Amino acid sequence: MTKYKLALLGFGNVGQAFAQLLLDKQEELKTRYNIEYSVSGIFTNRHGSAIDPDGLDIEAAVALGKAHANLNALSTIDSVKDSMDFIRGVKAEILFENSPVNYETGQPALDHIKLALEEGMHAITANKGPVVHGYHELTQLANSRNRKFYFESAVMDGAPIFSLFRSALPGARLLSFTGILNSTTNLILTRMEDDETFEQALSYTQSAGLAETDPSGDIDGWDASVKVAALATVLMDIPIKPVDVERQGIRGITSDDIRAAKAAGERWKLVCTCRREGSGLKTRVAPERVPIKSPLYNVMGSSSVVSFEMDVLSNLTIVENDPGPETTAYGLLADFINAVR
Amino acid sequence: MTKYKLALLGFGNVGQAFAQLLLDKQEELKTRYNIEYSVSGIFTNRHGSAIDPDGLDIEAAVALGKAHANLNALSTIDSVKDSMDFIRGVKAEILFENSPVNYETGQPALDHIKLALEEGMHAITANKGPVVHGYHELTQLANSRNRKFYFESAVMDGAPIFSLFRSALPGARLLSFTGILNSTTNLILTRMEDDETFEQALSYTQSAGLAETDPSGDIDGWDASVKVAALATVLMDIPIKPVDVERQGIRGITSDDIRAAKAAGERWKLVCTCRREGSGLKTRVAPERVPIKSPLYNVMGSSSVVSFEMDVLSNLTIVENDPGPETTAYGLLADFINAVR
Repeated sequence: MTKYKLALLGFGNVGQAFAQLLLDKQEELKTRYNIEYSVSGIFTNRHGSAIDPDGLDIEAAVALGKAHANLNALSTIDSVKDSMDFIRGVKAEILFENSPVNYETGQPALDHIKLALEEGMHAITANKGPVVHGYHELTQLANSRNRKFYFESAVMDGAPIFSLFRSALPGARLLSFTGILNSTTNLILTRMEDDETFEQALSYTQSAGLAETDPSGDIDGWDASVKVAALATVLMDIPIKPVDVERQGIRGITSDDIRAAKAAGERWKLVCTCRREGSGLKTRVAPERVPIKSPLYNVMGSSSVVSFEMDVLSNLTIVENDPGPETTAYGLLADFINAVR
Repeated sequence: MTKYKLALLGFGNVGQAFAQLLLDKQEELKTRYNIEYSVSGIFTNRHGSAIDPDGLDIEAAVALGKAHANLNALSTIDSVKDSMDFIRGVKAEILFENSPVNYETGQPALDHIKLALEEGMHAITANKGPVVHGYHELTQLANSRNRKFYFESAVMDGAPIFSLFRSALPGARLLSFTGILNSTTNLILTRMEDDETFEQALSYTQSAGLAETDPSGDIDGWDASVKVAALATVLMDIPIKPVDVERQGIRGITSDDIRAAKAAGERWKLVCTCRREGSGLKTRVAPERVPIKSPLYNVMGSSSVVSFEMDVLSNLTIVENDPGPETTAYGLLADFINAVR
């Protein structure tokens, strides 16, 4: 039995769901994987932070998190100055980095993960930013320290995509992929089929907590472009940036467009495509009408899908239905187990 | 660089496709995985066998295989007596067992794999029989010899299903699955939608080499039941036999049934289901009308699909389109790489 000290940077919906999942899976981790753990520290930007080298009371932390209360009361040491100070001081073996995504720079997650690896920790994140802005550098750094940089939840929540290629599909060369990778826009388009206007549907996704107050990251295709860049960088080994992706959002789609597609037995989807072209890639995020035969047609609401074309498998499609913070949390747990087993 | 000696037992469409894939991937195996190989022996029931400890000429063997010619000419030793004699004599590190499936006993594959493991080889097969009739025994035997018993291609050809749960989905508890797992019946039902009768469609699948002369294994639901039993045994750790699966084939489906479903926006599919019930399982293979919203609806022709419900992921669906012997061969290659890396 090995006992691992964990540090959680970020403790919003996903961080709390992950802490709860750790509790729920505690026995199973012991019996199936010989893994024990304690949580040495939790850092938040707005609700304080707590470090206890002997292990925090996770249930108490989750309760404080849900109540939007300050975590400082749980700490056995003086409060830390900032996130970098937290990483240096927490004395953990694994950092779970769940700060908000920054499409343009990947910061501050990039610096957090770099420091964690330099400090000898495994670094696990649900954040797409450091994947597109630092995959090669961080992976090399991790390898040089015999540590792992894993990020299963960065694309399609907890659905196994990166680990699929890392472990289950050896010797396969990815030629192209097509998918629906942004939940918010797919939910908006789904609700527009039920006769909501774009504005009504957008407003619903905001009230449901899926879209931000400034929804441009989703509806202008940035989130989808980051995911395309992440998949291309990791799975095809061709690093591209979100700005390199030809990008068109769904602002232009009207209720009339939706009705016209429906009448033709088709559906509007924000389609992500990426294919090898020469030694490079052709990548695109744009609304498209997909026919009933498409593997994308039936993927509704906040669900997502990706179809992979490989040299050895003509078409393999993965669909994840109804994701939530718990699903993302599972991706972090899978990365944890895979990093240490 | 490690060099592995391989033995192929069975050299039909899949065995030949695997040999060809080994040739096609020779460089990639070296550069990406530090794997070199030679084929020490090939055994067939009807076209002789060949052993060469220094490595057979694989291209020559594939050419002979395609020509249905006898392999004996390639052998540098006297011909072997039978398949067991071949396994004892071939001096390989990995046996690829591709003998025909036997739904009721799993033989002779079961004995082949047992002997191979006892002789210190990894055993890899595309055969469902030994999975449902010997999974626990063979896996224990493999573990005790520090060898692997892998069978990715036994269900859904080369699509990663077993390795998905083995490596990419740690800590997930499978609660139920639903799918289309038999290619022949799905192709028959697809062609019946294009106005062929059951007999015409069946005859086509036979001429295309998918269905056997005696097609009962497919159309009476045996093949699907074996696959349900294999998934339940391995992924849910509840060993069941094909006869335990409630089973109904597609002989009763008429052209009128197909038309009636179509008119209602539905489709007939041979649906496999398995769910935990108490400490056991409820399993079933039967034709069902699936609605357009079902993840099974769009899976046509010889394609297959499985939807998994887990405690940590509410629904994860895998679709494999247009499989062929090359796809099955890829599953064998993936098992090879995963067994030795």
